[in-house]
Amino acid sequence: MAATGREFFTAKTVAEALADFRPGHRTAVETVALDQAHGRVPAADILAGESLPGFDRSSVDGYAVRAQDTFGASDSIPAYLALAGSVAMGVAAGLNVPAHGAIAVPTGGALPGGADAVVMVEYTQEAMAGTIEVVRPVAPGEGIVRADEDMAPGRVAVSAGAPLRPQDVAMLAALGITQLEVHARPTVSILATGDELVAPDAGRVGPGQVRDALSSSVGALVRESGASPRPPQIVRDDPGALDDALGRALTDSDVVVICAGSSVGARDETAAAVAAVPGAEIYCHGLAIKPGKPTLLASSNGLPIIGLPGNPRSALVVFRLIGMPLIRRAGGWTAEHRAPSTPRRLSRDLPSAAGRLDVVQVRLSGDEAEPIFGPSALLSVVTAADEYVILPEDANGLSAGEIVEVFLYR
Amino acid sequence: MAATGREFFTAKTVAEALADFRPGHRTAVETVALDQAHGRVPAADILAGESLPGFDRSSVDGYAVRAQDTFGASDSIPAYLALAGSVAMGVAAGLNVPAHGAIAVPTGGALPGGADAVVMVEYTQEAMAGTIEVVRPVAPGEGIVRADEDMAPGRVAVSAGAPLRPQDVAMLAALGITQLEVHARPTVSILATGDELVAPDAGRVGPGQVRDALSSSVGALVRESGASPRPPQIVRDDPGALDDALGRALTDSDVVVICAGSSVGARDETAAAVAAVPGAEIYCHGLAIKPGKPTLLASSNGLPIIGLPGNPRSALVVFRLIGMPLIRRAGGWTAEHRAPSTPRRLSRDLPSAAGRLDVVQVRLSGDEAEPIFGPSALLSVVTAADEYVILPEDANGLSAGEIVEVFLYR
Repeated sequence: MAATGREFFTAKTVAEALADFRPGHRTAVETVALDQAHGRVPAADILAGESLPGFDRSSVDGYAVRAQDTFGASDSIPAYLALAGSVAMGVAAGLNVPAHGAIAVPTGGALPGGADAVVMVEYTQEAMAGTIEVVRPVAPGEGIVRADEDMAPGRVAVSAGAPLRPQDVAMLAALGITQLEVHARPTVSILATGDELVAPDAGRVGPGQVRDALSSSVGALVRESGASPRPPQIVRDDPGALDDALGRALTDSDVVVICAGSSVGARDETAAAVAAVPGAEIYCHGLAIKPGKPTLLASSNGLPIIGLPGNPRSALVVFRLIGMPLIRRAGGWTAEHRAPSTPRRLSRDLPSAAGRLDVVQVRLSGDEAEPIFGPSALLSVVTAADEYVILPEDANGLSAGEIVEVFLYR
Repeated sequence: MAATGREFFTAKTVAEALADFRPGHRTAVETVALDQAHGRVPAADILAGESLPGFDRSSVDGYAVRAQDTFGASDSIPAYLALAGSVAMGVAAGLNVPAHGAIAVPTGGALPGGADAVVMVEYTQEAMAGTIEVVRPVAPGEGIVRADEDMAPGRVAVSAGAPLRPQDVAMLAALGITQLEVHARPTVSILATGDELVAPDAGRVGPGQVRDALSSSVGALVRESGASPRPPQIVRDDPGALDDALGRALTDSDVVVICAGSSVGARDETAAAVAAVPGAEIYCHGLAIKPGKPTLLASSNGLPIIGLPGNPRSALVVFRLIGMPLIRRAGGWTAEHRAPSTPRRLSRDLPSAAGRLDVVQVRLSGDEAEPIFGPSALLSVVTAADEYVILPEDANGLSAGEIVEVFLYR
């Protein structure tokens, strides 16, 4: 309750928390089919088992030749080569290029024996039936992709610790790797606490009540982190109820998120419940960030527990900065995640306090970032935002016209 | 076949294609539950039906007061107010603040009648039982969020035409909007053509054959566009087979992607099959882009058909630039999509031809973007890339040390 009003914060900076709070729990390894593997995180480097493309291929539409037969060729003095056949797609060339001969080959077709280059069709013409004129010389190797030029056995095809991108999926498909070992998606329990909370679908709310806005939106951020949220749970402001819910969540989740009640009393109860779980280590109770100061970071036997501020806007800010990296790490990410950002001119002054990281919502106004101010309780400030600005701990405010790095929401 | 070697390109620039090729087909509207709505695209603006927070709330832990009773208060001359009760979370205040009185209220608690401000607990102390000292004045409205300050009935809660972000989900949850009308996810058929293609799980490949690397990786990009790929299909280089597959795809898809064979002959067959479908309009056959020149853009009764180059690297580049915006638009996006990008110093010169857009893969080397060169047939160039650079049509190459905009893959 307000009248008690004491909090024993062991506050940390955001930079300290990101560097030092690293609970050790990782999800198990499971096998997935390649067509479900996009965005999944390989548990170990995946090595190629064969060469790519696997055979010497033409990279152009043209004629496979012995390069030396074209040396000195020009428009005025073409090289005349005897057409000795053609290669079809999808089969072995099955032919050899004789001296002063040429074999027609399509892009991607197998290179016939004896050939060491392919001259593009644009630099040839069929002068008479069975003979082609070549009007430009080719060097050995020109117009060819070698059998192991794209990949060779034993080379790393995709690396562990970063989610598979579309091009990584393409590489694995090309190599015939259709089953792979990845980290399981983390399962995340989200406990929303507060006597004032009702479920979003509860119809009209009574006086003093508010709908739970965080379970579904933190759940969306959980999915953006490559993890799966469990069905939302609203927990009463009652130590026993929170103890029970927390105990269950720790047995069947990889990360636990508590959306704490927003009052001091509710926050104290959350901290007490977390401190009481087996193997609990409280890393910090309080972060030097605005909004989001009443954030709790703890672990239970290596499993991260994140206590978010009760007000939705603060909670979403903190979860993006601190919660998502913790979930990614539990899911096997070792690569650094770079939040997409771009420099932009600030439309007006931004105050900030040194020693504290400030997150300021901005809208795009022309080419400028225009700060949106408002109480931290307002969700509409963050729904109106296109981007946000981070003022680091060592900043003492920013001036209108300065170029700042903005982080994109979409 | 190579020996025929004639293509009748009706080439366009990428900028022209993005501006002018806008087939009219949109997916139907469907209703989804809020917990599945993240990333979905509302079909119309969604208006608030009520106010948020819905009642005057305290935004701090403290005491609800009549502001004028605190005017002039200081550490040396505190205002003494009679404690007249306390407000619990989740219920109506049910109390009135009398003159020179105060009611304890937690953050988020309902404001008692008669109060016009809340003084933070930090600026008070309980001097003796039943009386508090206030050591700082508050202005009317301080410490309060008004009933309709976050949202008011009839205001736009979230806009049509852009995918819902976590904060938009939070706003809808807070408003109790748990069912909403969104565009259906586009269904995308991907037809991979080429006699050389075998499915990725086909075991060892024969001489001259390659595994289909595009169906799964284009499928991944389709998912990143918010759409659903149909199961992949490999179609033989045979006009009848492609006609059939294309005809079926046009009846049960919102967008059709053809990964054309890479040879001129295969590309001509693709173009002929597309030209033969009912209501076909070929927008272009050839784009001024490297890699990716042999791209075909067409529509059939407003439904987009994209013919991609046969080589996987070119296809992935073109699909990202041209295909993904077409899918988003079919799925109801009207908002501009901004590919995440950031400025970076180029480590070495990059040549380019004016009049053509060049996409160059780069890796991050220290803080610099280092171009990765290699034949466009090599997938390993794009799997090794962290980012890519777009050299627009009017560029004549870039010099080492220049700052360029790089687009992020991850």
